[in-house]
Amino acid sequence: MKRTIAAVVFPEFEMLDLYGPLEMFSYFREDFEIRTVALQAGPVLASGGPATVAQDGMDGERDYDILLVPGGVGTRHVDGEPAFLSWLADQSKKAAYVTSVCTGSLLLAKAGVLDGRKATTNKLAFDWVADQCGGVDWQRQARWVVDGNIYTSSGVSAGMDMALAILADHLGEAAAANAARWAEYTRNKDPDNDPFAIEKPVT
Amino acid sequence: MKRTIAAVVFPEFEMLDLYGPLEMFSYFREDFEIRTVALQAGPVLASGGPATVAQDGMDGERDYDILLVPGGVGTRHVDGEPAFLSWLADQSKKAAYVTSVCTGSLLLAKAGVLDGRKATTNKLAFDWVADQCGGVDWQRQARWVVDGNIYTSSGVSAGMDMALAILADHLGEAAAANAARWAEYTRNKDPDNDPFAIEKPVT
Repeated sequence: MKRTIAAVVFPEFEMLDLYGPLEMFSYFREDFEIRTVALQAGPVLASGGPATVAQDGMDGERDYDILLVPGGVGTRHVDGEPAFLSWLADQSKKAAYVTSVCTGSLLLAKAGVLDGRKATTNKLAFDWVADQCGGVDWQRQARWVVDGNIYTSSGVSAGMDMALAILADHLGEAAAANAARWAEYTRNKDPDNDPFAIEKPVT
Repeated sequence: MKRTIAAVVFPEFEMLDLYGPLEMFSYFREDFEIRTVALQAGPVLASGGPATVAQDGMDGERDYDILLVPGGVGTRHVDGEPAFLSWLADQSKKAAYVTSVCTGSLLLAKAGVLDGRKATTNKLAFDWVADQCGGVDWQRQARWVVDGNIYTSSGVSAGMDMALAILADHLGEAAAANAARWAEYTRNKDPDNDPFAIEKPVT
């Protein structure tokens, strides 16, 4: 069964948060269809980078099998936006996998998706996220965290390791190993191996 | 002095080839301005992914300080396109840095930019590239190769290591180390350390 991935975008999303995982999924055209989704369809500027075209607006009727939520400074544009958060909450109930990279987990938390769940986020933004999102069992040291069907990763590049873990879980380890080889990517296979964990916030 | 980066796009470019390096450059807004460039301005579909909006067409008068040329299956759409190759050749003469990721070096080679130069490319496509592009000193084992102001990297993820090397050379090692930390990226600092080098083509 082909799974549809909702690659969520918003103004000033972090480029590699989105495109790192998409690269890994894109090798399996028979298994995944990638669709970009934003509040409204159309071009959406990345943080410090070019615009990505959102194919679908959140006002549509479409459902998705996998949610991919990036982070970035642009989370502030949508973390109080009811239409955005209610879409995340609604789609998360229907999706087979709910995933975030970096401070994308802030958006899932604000939508209530992470209530009572284990999750992680960008390590340089860790306390900023954890302090404003209670009710989540935030993991300070983790490359990525799996709680049921919810995968949250640490900052930026960690999304690639998380995507490869999803591939391993969904299509098998050989698929994940192939994707890493095709991308010439030296993979971190251990979710507990977090080279960027810090005990205290950088001040 | 702020440097302008021409992030070259063409139909079916490989997503991470482009966005991996752009992520690393994007942390330094005072030093770099990223502009997407295609044969014509407008949306350009990535390989298996969404469209990126090209801000500039190659018919414009603008010059750029840094060229970033990704690869991907889409190289076949432009590797015989005179307007594309002549733009690459012309801009390469003016740019401070000419860079490619993956099979982006095929495009530089076809434009004559790599004549007599050391260069590398994707390791799974190595012989396919080397066989059709003579006159280039192709390096079979290299994460990336520097020859004068020309940086060519191996496949996909190698572009991030190359971009960090460019940051180190242009802004200093501390800038590169910071970018890797901000991206939570475990960097390969040694251009000769190529975990994906293969002696023979995969058949």
